[in-house]
Amino acid sequence: MDSTRIAAERCRRAFYRISSLPIDVRDRALGQVAKELTRHEEAIVDANRKDLEEAERNQLSSPLLKRLKYDGMKIDESVRQVEALIMQEDPIGRVLSRMELDEGLVLEKVSCPIGVIGIVFESRPDALVQISTLCIKSGNAVLLKGGSEAKRTNEILAKVIQGAITQVDACFEDAVHLLSTREEFRALLVLDDLVDLIIPRGSNELVRSIQNSTKIPVLGHAAGICHTYVHEDADLELAVRVCYDAKVQYPAVCNAMETLLVNGKVAGTFLPLMAKEYGEAKVVMRGDEATRRIIPVDEATEDDWTAEYNDLVLSIKVVGSMQEAVDHINHYGSHHTDAIITRNEATARRFMDLVDSSSVMCNCSTRFADGYRYGLGAEVGISTSKTHARGPVGLEGLTIYKWRLFGKGQVVADYAGQGAKGFTHRKLS
Amino acid sequence: MDSTRIAAERCRRAFYRISSLPIDVRDRALGQVAKELTRHEEAIVDANRKDLEEAERNQLSSPLLKRLKYDGMKIDESVRQVEALIMQEDPIGRVLSRMELDEGLVLEKVSCPIGVIGIVFESRPDALVQISTLCIKSGNAVLLKGGSEAKRTNEILAKVIQGAITQVDACFEDAVHLLSTREEFRALLVLDDLVDLIIPRGSNELVRSIQNSTKIPVLGHAAGICHTYVHEDADLELAVRVCYDAKVQYPAVCNAMETLLVNGKVAGTFLPLMAKEYGEAKVVMRGDEATRRIIPVDEATEDDWTAEYNDLVLSIKVVGSMQEAVDHINHYGSHHTDAIITRNEATARRFMDLVDSSSVMCNCSTRFADGYRYGLGAEVGISTSKTHARGPVGLEGLTIYKWRLFGKGQVVADYAGQGAKGFTHRKLS
Repeated sequence: MDSTRIAAERCRRAFYRISSLPIDVRDRALGQVAKELTRHEEAIVDANRKDLEEAERNQLSSPLLKRLKYDGMKIDESVRQVEALIMQEDPIGRVLSRMELDEGLVLEKVSCPIGVIGIVFESRPDALVQISTLCIKSGNAVLLKGGSEAKRTNEILAKVIQGAITQVDACFEDAVHLLSTREEFRALLVLDDLVDLIIPRGSNELVRSIQNSTKIPVLGHAAGICHTYVHEDADLELAVRVCYDAKVQYPAVCNAMETLLVNGKVAGTFLPLMAKEYGEAKVVMRGDEATRRIIPVDEATEDDWTAEYNDLVLSIKVVGSMQEAVDHINHYGSHHTDAIITRNEATARRFMDLVDSSSVMCNCSTRFADGYRYGLGAEVGISTSKTHARGPVGLEGLTIYKWRLFGKGQVVADYAGQGAKGFTHRKLS
Repeated sequence: MDSTRIAAERCRRAFYRISSLPIDVRDRALGQVAKELTRHEEAIVDANRKDLEEAERNQLSSPLLKRLKYDGMKIDESVRQVEALIMQEDPIGRVLSRMELDEGLVLEKVSCPIGVIGIVFESRPDALVQISTLCIKSGNAVLLKGGSEAKRTNEILAKVIQGAITQVDACFEDAVHLLSTREEFRALLVLDDLVDLIIPRGSNELVRSIQNSTKIPVLGHAAGICHTYVHEDADLELAVRVCYDAKVQYPAVCNAMETLLVNGKVAGTFLPLMAKEYGEAKVVMRGDEATRRIIPVDEATEDDWTAEYNDLVLSIKVVGSMQEAVDHINHYGSHHTDAIITRNEATARRFMDLVDSSSVMCNCSTRFADGYRYGLGAEVGISTSKTHARGPVGLEGLTIYKWRLFGKGQVVADYAGQGAKGFTHRKLS
């Protein structure tokens, strides 16, 4: 689709202009966004009301309607988030290392923005504000696609943000661009010459479908199959409290526990205690044979070990050793977040070394795996990929680095062949 | 191809075993590799001689024959490289940051290996030794595919390395696996559930074809179209020396200059001086109209601006300003390495901010963009992608991080809703 290529080309040119804007300009642009959001509150709420009315006519489910709603309170929250983002350190231009290669030849590794980011998100209009301001802060240009049910809200939000940043500096023109149709976003996925990173925020199906249709790097996670393993030396009271939280506190999210692994030596004591608590919270439990010999639950089939219920459902397996738990997690898990409950720090560290997941935890709830809780500020997403960024990703995930080499006329010929000069390779502070 | 999946599954299991081996075991394995290479020198040279004989019968070009040759001297060089690798710091288990989220709840970000790496390389058998030892050092498992012309050499090298590391620890079984056919490597490219990173070391065509046929992240560069821009305030004598080196010292490589950009204000003085030097080195020059008004060279067409000659050929363009040079580089370049010649540091920094390339340089030759010269030790490759690793990539490019959270029974419910606990988010050293 030609219109998408044109939009992406404009966005790329905007990136070249904004990537070197000083932090005070980027922060002033964010300040203006906060102001303009407040100033246009009424119009935004109006647009959102129309989206909500249409969504109700289309009989959207009540959780979806709740996420779609963007009222005065939510606008205030967005404004507070933008203000908090202004307070964050500049992620750009940080000298990550300096080295003298030879006298008068100095190499610097310095953080910089990535380029053009394509982001697709579902339902929640506040995501548009969060994502575009994260991109402004980090000097990236962004192409956004929201859910069609939030069309009117997203359009006015994009317009308000574009207006605000362009007021501060004309460079920002085209730096935040809203794509209107799903076809436009699909067309974006093949523009690997113009788009540097895709971030999908939405259902597992959405993420998987995007991963399957682009060569552009995708930052995100398609599944969150998280485990807690209760070791034989666990404090069982602590284990009950943590496993309860990991499953029950908010089961619809990716960092909630889906499978409980229990060491056989404590299963007989632990599972009845745990099942009592889960029973009161109406958790549906499914267990392997050994579990079913201890507590009366439904049978877990092979499919249960790879299921992300996102609901008050839990699979339970009794294992003979920590290694068996590790093998189960590495085989069936999604490399998202997995925890061990143990009194022994060496055992915990061994588990954490062996489990190949973005977050590994000891004696606490998998639900902590989150950018805000990790102190990263706003969260770009949670990544289960093995390159670039892993786990909860903050602003830093929107940056990369470049190498700067300052010389005084040095040529490689002087360092080659007989009588060649040597490099000093001296680390500088 | 089922045999490739089986090999990749074995390699993945090997990764789970070796990823947590302490550095002394990994280093001892490398020491054993060095010993066994020396011990099997005769057999390796024999195998290589057979490859060379066949290659001669197949009338391989003389540069290819030279790269294929792996004699006693080259084996010694490989051994020295392995010994240097042993001396390098452990890239794994480094605590990159520590933060107290709340009392008794401590988060660590710690470096770890990536997983299973698929590497394809052409001709040079020393690449096999270099790559597999880099993977051993960094706790990664590796599937290798070399050029068919080096079949016998690669087979014995893989066998010697596998034998050496397995002697030190049985965990290493299957950690280094040689794929025999091109079909096997092609089959690997679809195994994104088992392979975490692909590194192609070879021609631009090879890299491009791999990038086009896999969803697995690819670390490398498809092209090296490097520029040097001579600014109006440049020290012209310095400019001549640096531009000569960037084009002439070794034109066949990716970091050699392909296009020279000259500010119109100095073109009249600079180009005749430069053309004289290039003429003596038999560099074929092609220029735009403005260039041709100053020196008698062939006409450069649009294709020349995107050509990677890898030869003693150079395109030349006269530009009106630094911004025009930057625009040309960002538009036609390959985001590899680009340099400015200027006396003004502010101008240099501005150029370096604006040019979107993995290495940006001032007053030195683009030929410096190289892992060894950058002090990275052995080089995994040079990356022009915008995520994970950029520019010359050393051992660090074979690592990622995981998050470790140590608690004492904390649950998320305590930090949610009314009367919730707050996070301290206190940075620890």
